[in-house]
Amino acid sequence: MKVIAIHGAGGPETLVLEEREKPEAPYRHLLIKVHATAVNRADIMQRMGFYPAPAGCVKDVPGLEFVGQIQSLGPGCHLDHRVGDRVMGLMPGGTYQEYLTIDESLVLPIPEQYDFIKAAAIPEAYITAFDALVLQGGMRPGHRVLVSAAASSVGVAAAQLIKAWHGTGIGTTRNAQKLTQLADLYDKAIVCKSTEINGRTLPGFAPGVRSYLETLSGTANGALDLVLELAGGDYIEESLDLMTDRGIIVLVGLLAGRTTQLSINKILSKRISLIGTTLRARSLAEKAGVVRAFEKQVLPLFARGLLDPVVDKVFRLDQAGEAHAYLESNANIGKVVLEV
Amino acid sequence: MKVIAIHGAGGPETLVLEEREKPEAPYRHLLIKVHATAVNRADIMQRMGFYPAPAGCVKDVPGLEFVGQIQSLGPGCHLDHRVGDRVMGLMPGGTYQEYLTIDESLVLPIPEQYDFIKAAAIPEAYITAFDALVLQGGMRPGHRVLVSAAASSVGVAAAQLIKAWHGTGIGTTRNAQKLTQLADLYDKAIVCKSTEINGRTLPGFAPGVRSYLETLSGTANGALDLVLELAGGDYIEESLDLMTDRGIIVLVGLLAGRTTQLSINKILSKRISLIGTTLRARSLAEKAGVVRAFEKQVLPLFARGLLDPVVDKVFRLDQAGEAHAYLESNANIGKVVLEV
Repeated sequence: MKVIAIHGAGGPETLVLEEREKPEAPYRHLLIKVHATAVNRADIMQRMGFYPAPAGCVKDVPGLEFVGQIQSLGPGCHLDHRVGDRVMGLMPGGTYQEYLTIDESLVLPIPEQYDFIKAAAIPEAYITAFDALVLQGGMRPGHRVLVSAAASSVGVAAAQLIKAWHGTGIGTTRNAQKLTQLADLYDKAIVCKSTEINGRTLPGFAPGVRSYLETLSGTANGALDLVLELAGGDYIEESLDLMTDRGIIVLVGLLAGRTTQLSINKILSKRISLIGTTLRARSLAEKAGVVRAFEKQVLPLFARGLLDPVVDKVFRLDQAGEAHAYLESNANIGKVVLEV
Repeated sequence: MKVIAIHGAGGPETLVLEEREKPEAPYRHLLIKVHATAVNRADIMQRMGFYPAPAGCVKDVPGLEFVGQIQSLGPGCHLDHRVGDRVMGLMPGGTYQEYLTIDESLVLPIPEQYDFIKAAAIPEAYITAFDALVLQGGMRPGHRVLVSAAASSVGVAAAQLIKAWHGTGIGTTRNAQKLTQLADLYDKAIVCKSTEINGRTLPGFAPGVRSYLETLSGTANGALDLVLELAGGDYIEESLDLMTDRGIIVLVGLLAGRTTQLSINKILSKRISLIGTTLRARSLAEKAGVVRAFEKQVLPLFARGLLDPVVDKVFRLDQAGEAHAYLESNANIGKVVLEV
């Protein structure tokens, strides 16, 4: 079978198409014929050598998600799966390949109305956004939610989930060219303008968020219930003044910085929770729990048209390097898909 | 009635004994004859002008807790209170006085076997420690819990609660003279020794905690379930490497710093929750909930001898300034009480 392997560590050229032996499904696993996978920031980090795959996972093949069909069932399978079923799911790595095996408790059915390409925009983006917003962040109807890096695939999924949950979504981006498209997705889209405050350069979204919140309620400080922090770094500090008491910041991404100076006095006095989260390294049992919650709470919303996966661009598997370079250029809104 | 009022803002000399009119209990409030109160860091902060009392609270009289007797019941009282009942409780301010009024849902009975002085060491210390460890931090039997500023009255209460919950308690202090007494309270007591790491001075408790944890399990990193952070500042950063996945840091105090540089990548990858908390500014309904949980879960443990309030020193109400100076000298282990 064809596989994209990482040779060394560095630029997109380290991704090399190889031929490897097709795996067999072990105990209670499914063998999947992969029809499509997609590119995530984590794949690029892994390619550069910064984000190794967790233990027990293929080390030199990137990829965190797939859509495909069940080719065969391993011994001991007892859930309701059949050969030919269209399924999708997350993996801790190794989805840039023609076949893969996965624990039978971790796959989800693909919504009937979608082809494989469209469905490839679902797993990582929507499961990450759902887990962070709802399972970690406790999102409820009416919540006011701020999302940084809002044009990312997780940001796009988050915008739709916030709408479906009857909340108010505010998305920020550093790229002014994305504003028009973001404004369709979010109740309010804001372009960050770096601002110096007390000798420190902050991302600069707070003034825009504050004036939007004022239009809602006449008050601005203390109005955000939830922050989906996809950028990290100094974005956290800048959001503190905007939050309501007992507000929650769910930290999912670190592109804007792995460390930051934080006013913990504000965290204390507003009783804020800062919750770090990542899906990749969780136990099988915990992942299966997230997948079942997603199947029950989120999958029906695709059929009802409340959620609509956004594919930005499709590459062939052998163009994985080009797909990486494209994602690194930050030109996308929504998902960069690899057709296998 | 006698009252200790703050005149201006500054040192202990700003605390002045005054005569004021005795209050009357309003609707669904109790009039309490105060027998004792106690000194908290927040009182000192308030005296210095840094920590104003919340809205709706007397502004110029410090004090967050009291023990006393019910003198009269206001109109509309419907809970099971009687004149003469020995009660204790928390207030957002204004307990340095002979009489006070409080919502009838916020008082707790004083354990029978204690006199007023001993009971005065209960409310703020034990309710704060219980709320932070159990209600916010989700403490469970078997948890490994690190407490900074462990010789403070909250730290002493926390040590006893951790033991009663069948957990392992590790307490840190900057004062080597407190080590012996702390070693009686905690499974392990550690004196901080400031350490320079990557050009940054950290409190320096991690090596001691790590070697103790190694004696427990053969492994040290990733072993703490819960941190009761009473110091704040750089203590948070130093504890990150010691924590287990999904570990919780409950931030209650800021004496060691109101801002800090934080490795949020560790918060993300270990899925740590940093939860700020404070009792003072909560709504009546929320406070009443904490008080009822405390009555049910914690009060019986005093009668069984599992919890034992520690009074460090007793001052008269008119010695409030001396009591403040004593607490500021950091000489105490346990509570500094004011007899009214």
